[in-house]
Amino acid sequence: MNILHLEDYQDLQDELLEIIALFHQKGWSPATSTNYSFRNPQPYQETFTISSSGIDKLHFKAEDFMMIDDEGSPLPGYEHKKPSAETGLHTMLYHHLDTQAILHTHSVASTVFSLVHHKDKIVQLTGFEVLKGIKGINTHEASVSIPIFDNSQDIEALSQEIKIYFDHNPKMKGFLLAGHGLYAWGTSLAEAKRHTEVFEFIFECMNQMYCFCRHGN
Amino acid sequence: MNILHLEDYQDLQDELLEIIALFHQKGWSPATSTNYSFRNPQPYQETFTISSSGIDKLHFKAEDFMMIDDEGSPLPGYEHKKPSAETGLHTMLYHHLDTQAILHTHSVASTVFSLVHHKDKIVQLTGFEVLKGIKGINTHEASVSIPIFDNSQDIEALSQEIKIYFDHNPKMKGFLLAGHGLYAWGTSLAEAKRHTEVFEFIFECMNQMYCFCRHGN
Amino acid sequence: MNILHLEDYQDLQDELLEIIALFHQKGWSPATSTNYSFRNPQPYQETFTISSSGIDKLHFKAEDFMMIDDEGSPLPGYEHKKPSAETGLHTMLYHHLDTQAILHTHSVASTVFSLVHHKDKIVQLTGFEVLKGIKGINTHEASVSIPIFDNSQDIEALSQEIKIYFDHNPKMKGFLLAGHGLYAWGTSLAEAKRHTEVFEFIFECMNQMYCFCRHGN
Amino acid sequence: MNILHLEDYQDLQDELLEIIALFHQKGWSPATSTNYSFRNPQPYQETFTISSSGIDKLHFKAEDFMMIDDEGSPLPGYEHKKPSAETGLHTMLYHHLDTQAILHTHSVASTVFSLVHHKDKIVQLTGFEVLKGIKGINTHEASVSIPIFDNSQDIEALSQEIKIYFDHNPKMKGFLLAGHGLYAWGTSLAEAKRHTEVFEFIFECMNQMYCFCRHGN
Repeated sequence: MNILHLEDYQDLQDELLEIIALFHQKGWSPATSTNYSFRNPQPYQETFTISSSGIDKLHFKAEDFMMIDDEGSPLPGYEHKKPSAETGLHTMLYHHLDTQAILHTHSVASTVFSLVHHKDKIVQLTGFEVLKGIKGINTHEASVSIPIFDNSQDIEALSQEIKIYFDHNPKMKGFLLAGHGLYAWGTSLAEAKRHTEVFEFIFECMNQMYCFCRHGN
Repeated sequence: MNILHLEDYQDLQDELLEIIALFHQKGWSPATSTNYSFRNPQPYQETFTISSSGIDKLHFKAEDFMMIDDEGSPLPGYEHKKPSAETGLHTMLYHHLDTQAILHTHSVASTVFSLVHHKDKIVQLTGFEVLKGIKGINTHEASVSIPIFDNSQDIEALSQEIKIYFDHNPKMKGFLLAGHGLYAWGTSLAEAKRHTEVFEFIFECMNQMYCFCRHGN
Repeated sequence: MNILHLEDYQDLQDELLEIIALFHQKGWSPATSTNYSFRNPQPYQETFTISSSGIDKLHFKAEDFMMIDDEGSPLPGYEHKKPSAETGLHTMLYHHLDTQAILHTHSVASTVFSLVHHKDKIVQLTGFEVLKGIKGINTHEASVSIPIFDNSQDIEALSQEIKIYFDHNPKMKGFLLAGHGLYAWGTSLAEAKRHTEVFEFIFECMNQMYCFCRHGN
Repeated sequence: MNILHLEDYQDLQDELLEIIALFHQKGWSPATSTNYSFRNPQPYQETFTISSSGIDKLHFKAEDFMMIDDEGSPLPGYEHKKPSAETGLHTMLYHHLDTQAILHTHSVASTVFSLVHHKDKIVQLTGFEVLKGIKGINTHEASVSIPIFDNSQDIEALSQEIKIYFDHNPKMKGFLLAGHGLYAWGTSLAEAKRHTEVFEFIFECMNQMYCFCRHGN
């Protein structure tokens, strides 16, 4: 039986297409930036559906997805497509078996936040009710860490660096690449979307307040 | 006769669905935040329709509403649904019999405003023509108080604190929870929407001007 | 022959409805703020079509227009409708016979701009290419004056004050009311829309730059 | 055979219409600002399709395009239309044979950026992952120069000044006119759109950060 005909698969694909369109409308995917993926349904859970490279998200459609194995190589039938340059980050994150879906946004808010706090390497997010949108967080008084990694074109080295952090911080739900934006994930597409919106919202708030606080006393 | 078949009820439900969709489009309900309710039409005016918990407002539809009594317990037929964690704030506000509808937004503007002015506890809004959108206000020279309460996960205690303030300030049309956003209400859904838009507009203006004023002289 | 059946009239009404919907989508008409009008086509040019009071612009439709004479009184058939409280500003502006359409926006940008520069009373706009969108302006080097009047609930007195300024500055294409927003007009609805967009664009730019300039040196 | 009936031509026209509508929705074409063009398909590659002057981009449609020769004169059949006042900038840019499409945006972000950095004459853009959206750029560590020219109503002189710069900097993909906005181009409409979105995104980020950096230490 072909995976493309699984009803579950079609539902996941439709769900991700809706998310991609929504995020594009918000301005979170300028030029041909961003990439998105989900873990394929059983019994194909060691394979992944990922956006192929270089597509304007204004026009992204089902045919722009491709399937890869857990090393990032195209599955048979997809060899003619080019996976995102950042596929290695996705496959690394899927080594944590809870990861079911990964969304990468490239918003002004996340880019500015990542550059402004770049030197801090880790920012603590606290005092925002919306933090309760993060799985496992039950109060705004919780402190959620968001690490900021140096951006790099050497995805293998970057992936290794993030893997080490993730192995030591398995509750991590997202990270920033400096000047590059946000990766967030979850145990479902809906949860990954929720986590993305939580982070983006807090970045917008903190960016606005950063302007105030630097000059007040 | 079933309340769901009352024509008035259908109209209220449709009106609130439109408001929820509009506010979501404005970015006022990130992740699965926010909740909304209205007082059911006579002779059911001691029961309320409220959004159930944890729904992404992108997809909110009629089936995501539920009915509760004046203590926040689900009415028969709705026991399988989970009311918003903040249902206690709604039922408290409905003790003032004029309250016909309550809208809770979770915008960047209200969140930033609530955190920046948190220590002041009450902010006076004045000099804005749009204040005339608040019921009973006839001039921009009026001063409208917006209290900011500490956010809390203990909704019963929070509700009690706000109740005391409301009983002493019965003209209050909205309040802020720090880091959590705005509650606003009115004698109709249209009025609650108008009040919400007045407050959100003023928060946006004052946030922009706060940046200027802190640094000027 | 009834004015409502003039083809010209229908075209004007449709054109203004489209502008009202567009401006609402931009967030320029929060709560039930703003009002709009045009001079009726010949031979009815001494009467005007104006938005009636208190309508949420999300829902504004043809039935929400009403007709008034040059003193702001409803024409026969419209006595049951309430013209905008600011009708006196419209009829005053129509005394200049070139005025064919008037748009009043209530944006965050114009409100903030009007409050920040309130004490200056008149702001010179210069150096913006978009100024060429103002009728009679052929270069970005031109300087266009935008006066800021104190907001007032005494529309008759306010109208008189603005009339005096207008009579001495007949090229004026718009003014601000402090904390209240922008009035702009033109020799057609299209020109009034163009003027509105020019002013709103410059206010947004200058608000952003104001933040920079106050703190730089 | 008439160029208007070439299938390639229809595709280009449709593609540009979609871009114009998208950019208008983003607020990048206030009043009747901005202009757009593409090189006609072979064997008509020395002629160009360009937006005619003074059209509100809210309503821009196929009939608002016109064809010009490489000196900016209307082709037969288009003499009744008025090409954009800035047509000379387009024809100058098309002297570089790689230029297939030119987009001019007039956003708040590009206008503010152009005025804030006006005196620097050239701004280096670096550290943004989105720079990889510029043709020939493979790393965020690249530095892309964006020159800012004084705005001028003497398009011939302005065109000559930019031509000299372009001849010495043939990799240039865009420039700013102070207080006037961005011109960007590419070897296809899709590439010109990508370049525009890269620049606009970076301007938004840098404008936000400029506010922080001027006041920090």
